[in-house]
Amino acid sequence: MSGLRIGAIVAACAALCAAIVLPAARPAAQSTPQAPASLANDPKLIEDLVYANRILYQQDVLDGFGHVSVRSDKDPTHFLMSRSMAPALVTSNDIMEFDRDGEPVDAHGRNAYVERYIHAAIYRVRPDVKAVVHSHSPDIIPYSVTGTILRPVYHMSAFLRLGAPIFDSQEGFGDTDMLIRDNKLGDALAKVLGNSSVALIRGHGFVAVADTTPIVVHRAIYTQMKNARVQTEGMKLGAIKYLTPGEAVKAQAIVEATVGRPWELWKSRVGKIQ
Amino acid sequence: MSGLRIGAIVAACAALCAAIVLPAARPAAQSTPQAPASLANDPKLIEDLVYANRILYQQDVLDGFGHVSVRSDKDPTHFLMSRSMAPALVTSNDIMEFDRDGEPVDAHGRNAYVERYIHAAIYRVRPDVKAVVHSHSPDIIPYSVTGTILRPVYHMSAFLRLGAPIFDSQEGFGDTDMLIRDNKLGDALAKVLGNSSVALIRGHGFVAVADTTPIVVHRAIYTQMKNARVQTEGMKLGAIKYLTPGEAVKAQAIVEATVGRPWELWKSRVGKIQ
Amino acid sequence: MSGLRIGAIVAACAALCAAIVLPAARPAAQSTPQAPASLANDPKLIEDLVYANRILYQQDVLDGFGHVSVRSDKDPTHFLMSRSMAPALVTSNDIMEFDRDGEPVDAHGRNAYVERYIHAAIYRVRPDVKAVVHSHSPDIIPYSVTGTILRPVYHMSAFLRLGAPIFDSQEGFGDTDMLIRDNKLGDALAKVLGNSSVALIRGHGFVAVADTTPIVVHRAIYTQMKNARVQTEGMKLGAIKYLTPGEAVKAQAIVEATVGRPWELWKSRVGKIQ
Amino acid sequence: MSGLRIGAIVAACAALCAAIVLPAARPAAQSTPQAPASLANDPKLIEDLVYANRILYQQDVLDGFGHVSVRSDKDPTHFLMSRSMAPALVTSNDIMEFDRDGEPVDAHGRNAYVERYIHAAIYRVRPDVKAVVHSHSPDIIPYSVTGTILRPVYHMSAFLRLGAPIFDSQEGFGDTDMLIRDNKLGDALAKVLGNSSVALIRGHGFVAVADTTPIVVHRAIYTQMKNARVQTEGMKLGAIKYLTPGEAVKAQAIVEATVGRPWELWKSRVGKIQ
Repeated sequence: MSGLRIGAIVAACAALCAAIVLPAARPAAQSTPQAPASLANDPKLIEDLVYANRILYQQDVLDGFGHVSVRSDKDPTHFLMSRSMAPALVTSNDIMEFDRDGEPVDAHGRNAYVERYIHAAIYRVRPDVKAVVHSHSPDIIPYSVTGTILRPVYHMSAFLRLGAPIFDSQEGFGDTDMLIRDNKLGDALAKVLGNSSVALIRGHGFVAVADTTPIVVHRAIYTQMKNARVQTEGMKLGAIKYLTPGEAVKAQAIVEATVGRPWELWKSRVGKIQ
Repeated sequence: MSGLRIGAIVAACAALCAAIVLPAARPAAQSTPQAPASLANDPKLIEDLVYANRILYQQDVLDGFGHVSVRSDKDPTHFLMSRSMAPALVTSNDIMEFDRDGEPVDAHGRNAYVERYIHAAIYRVRPDVKAVVHSHSPDIIPYSVTGTILRPVYHMSAFLRLGAPIFDSQEGFGDTDMLIRDNKLGDALAKVLGNSSVALIRGHGFVAVADTTPIVVHRAIYTQMKNARVQTEGMKLGAIKYLTPGEAVKAQAIVEATVGRPWELWKSRVGKIQ
Repeated sequence: MSGLRIGAIVAACAALCAAIVLPAARPAAQSTPQAPASLANDPKLIEDLVYANRILYQQDVLDGFGHVSVRSDKDPTHFLMSRSMAPALVTSNDIMEFDRDGEPVDAHGRNAYVERYIHAAIYRVRPDVKAVVHSHSPDIIPYSVTGTILRPVYHMSAFLRLGAPIFDSQEGFGDTDMLIRDNKLGDALAKVLGNSSVALIRGHGFVAVADTTPIVVHRAIYTQMKNARVQTEGMKLGAIKYLTPGEAVKAQAIVEATVGRPWELWKSRVGKIQ
Repeated sequence: MSGLRIGAIVAACAALCAAIVLPAARPAAQSTPQAPASLANDPKLIEDLVYANRILYQQDVLDGFGHVSVRSDKDPTHFLMSRSMAPALVTSNDIMEFDRDGEPVDAHGRNAYVERYIHAAIYRVRPDVKAVVHSHSPDIIPYSVTGTILRPVYHMSAFLRLGAPIFDSQEGFGDTDMLIRDNKLGDALAKVLGNSSVALIRGHGFVAVADTTPIVVHRAIYTQMKNARVQTEGMKLGAIKYLTPGEAVKAQAIVEATVGRPWELWKSRVGKIQ
């Protein structure tokens, strides 16, 4: 299929999506949906955010659901994230700005993800975090529901050295719809995350955080596709010798310093974005 | 390969298929095979049915076998389904109408799936059901032959909360060819299904039902690719904490309310249909 | 990539291959390599054989190795098979004719697969067999080396009802290079195969046989991708209820009568062949 | 996407990569980055090296990380390898020459892989080795961290007959960043490798060696995708009957003599390279 044709389909889908997504918790102003004013001082921040959406779909971390955000560089209490739509179809025009409470600053008639409070809550308490991914990856779910601890099996996932604590909404919130749909749930999740790079959400998925967009993409990919699968297979073979704490600190530093190498590859596979 | 070329191949295949499929149980009238008169008041019903065929192939729920149907909106005792052919190749011209007994209303020389009685039987006793998928998905078969209960591992498959009962034709019908090839077998399967969203068929596959086409597609995908695989892996790691009944009711409601989001993605990946 | 471009690459590769394959056991006549005279009365026999090569590659049954043959309809003691090359690149010009001893009738300077004796031996003792596939499929190897019996888990693989006996060259031939490289080894394998549809070869792969090309392709695909994977997963969950002998006889008859349906799909995915 | 477009993206990415990779251990001369003078007498050596990079990415042996090298035919104490970049994007202009200590001969402002000492150390002590692959393949990691011995399950991986010893940097070097980042670590790895074709690196990956580029690609593919997966599955089914030493010697000889067959297939799937 030609690039033009894919472009046309994507554009058509983006238009269709607008009509079917969930209403935002706060009613959007009745302005015409147009391209918003500059959301960031650095246009590369939004470009990388769009790439992150597309890459995480192509690498099977996200499917029709899940989302990725970045902290605003204009107002560090705010963050940027797509309107409610499939990540694979996101363009720069779909990026919205959210305030510290997770509410849209200027919705332009667009709807927001129900679970934007995951992002808001983490940005509030983790000033070091500049980017957040939330995924329902099937490879992670077994760990979230059995209490098996996800640990760094090899240098590529050394960022798991602080563990991947499990947030279970049943404790403290009882029977919910499993979504992180308000700031109370968000705060509880952020508390469980603590200083870790990854937290699992029981019967739901995981969240990964980092201080750059390429690194959060790396962590999301290597959490699920690589470490979870490798650890699952390894546990069937015998007792695993994980990275020692000392190895993990050093390995994380060098691996994440070279993340530009896979980042360029991932972008090249996505192709040109809008 | 260009879209034009794929189109040509698809058209050629459709023609070829006509000559090789099984004869319908009731001999078709000797009319010329032309596009039938309008089968539904809403053309979107047929368009979505064609998309469902293509999506379920692309998402590995169907291969050369399996089928998907929708209840007619013109005559709610009737249903619409492709003639007997591979779902990946279905176009709107291939959609036939079937009566409440599962017999073609106007075959135009086209042949019907042997197992259309699965659909007929369910539409007869489940007025809430508007769409049905039948698949031989390899990920489901292990559950159908070991009696392991498929249960909701995470919010995306909360629709499994009523269980996925197993129909075994050996009980009551003895040694058959394993196909649901008449209304007696269909009725027995529908009885096992009861009010559930999914039933497994021992040594054969599964059936998923829903009240819209996008939701039945969602359920078919998340039954097999997601829940079955996740549960299988989780059971190897330890005791699984499944969704509680209360969580499952709430999670199903919110997830299925947002099915438009993956539906647009799935459609965009299939591309333009005929 | 355009169809034209793929065509050019394929043609170039075919030319390159001629220089690097193994010499045939019997030196080829020094004729110029040209398209051979008609090998079959029915040109569809060769067309289907080329499709079978391409389909089995696309369906992951064959990779750079493995082969597929059909019995000649001009001389039923002979069979047709590609010269020694990767199945994915085979065109009608690469099809050679072999005599009942597995030797090329008219090599035209082309080289033959070392293991052509698998095919010759089976055609000699199984007059009902019209097509043979040999594969190294990784999904099958675990069964070949652990003695676990491959059995029909569902109706699609009911053809396994006579079992898939294991040929081990160690018994009777000692340490060999594991290839079926002469008629003695071929005869021993054919004896183990008996009247079955499939035989495994220890530490090597499997062979599937049938009386038509589409059915042998179906059996090869459903032996490995489907039944082996399903049975392996099922055995981890619990005791499997396999098809009963009576179910398997009936299910095989109906499934193989509808093989035209997936066959058209598989062909459409391969595209136009030469 | 068209070939032209992919070419453009690849070129753009190659340019971008230059800015972000790690600095080489030895500062590069301040010459302008141009195509280097002929690095090899045989241009096919570099062409095959570029193909090996692309093939190993397409076959899932390498992702954004990992590398492949060949011994120089002009100076057998030197070797050729890409500058530090994702293997999938390598062109002939990216190939650099390294001396026997693993230092760039003429960097032209380009940066080198940190782990080039893996290659240097092996070329120093294994005169029979002409090509080396280093990969982080997830399928191999379970073996590297549990001490399970990788053994030849079938003829295609008979080259594992001398075993795949495990190098653990913890023994002798304590807590490192897990990378083979100097000649001391390289020498220790080469010592563990000994005369084998493959060595595993605990919590990191593996290295495969051979005397031609196609054979090292074959060994890398069949080590991970095939043998590791097959052995893992087989061990779940029961006790595996591996190739005997006598079988393995003979099978390796014949399989590696026919490597030109998959090599042409792998090249055809990569398409035209620069």
